[in-house]
Amino acid sequence: MTKLSTEDIEARIGAFPDWARNGEALVCTFSFEDFVNAMGFVSRVADLAEEHQHHPDIMIRYNKVTLTLSTHDAGGLTEKDFALARDIDAFATASKG
Amino acid sequence: MTKLSTEDIEARIGAFPDWARNGEALVCTFSFEDFVNAMGFVSRVADLAEEHQHHPDIMIRYNKVTLTLSTHDAGGLTEKDFALARDIDAFATASKG
Repeated sequence: MTKLSTEDIEARIGAFPDWARNGEALVCTFSFEDFVNAMGFVSRVADLAEEHQHHPDIMIRYNKVTLTLSTHDAGGLTEKDFALARDIDAFATASKG
Repeated sequence: MTKLSTEDIEARIGAFPDWARNGEALVCTFSFEDFVNAMGFVSRVADLAEEHQHHPDIMIRYNKVTLTLSTHDAGGLTEKDFALARDIDAFATASKG
């Protein structure tokens, strides 16, 4: 996996309006009704992470979950991060429907 | 719940050698074989948190889980934090056995 250039990142990040670039990472905070619902989301993110064999940092504060995606082996953002963000967004959207 | 004094905290914290005081919080990092085992631990901590109706901040970085306990309503550490740390330690010890 090759680290993406700033141009490559800027070309991709428009499709992820809920995510922000923070240095060498993509970051998004999801809010839920309560802790139990937040943990249900974390459980599904964990399953996706295992499928992708790519694991975000996950911070849980009661009903808020912050995911931080980066490819440590590549020293920055790669296609793996955007692929995982895409699948998480698809699920997060589905869970609102 | 009343915020504990520094003397009260110092009298209690000796029983929690794996936990450190960090300002108004108790912090401990647990290490596991891999992400799946870390998530299994988080799932049990989440069940305990619901039982206690007291929810730690939970940070997951692949195989490492950092728990941060504080009683925000009281502005610091209370008996609720030590009670939850005690139950987490009991489980964490059991899971090693």
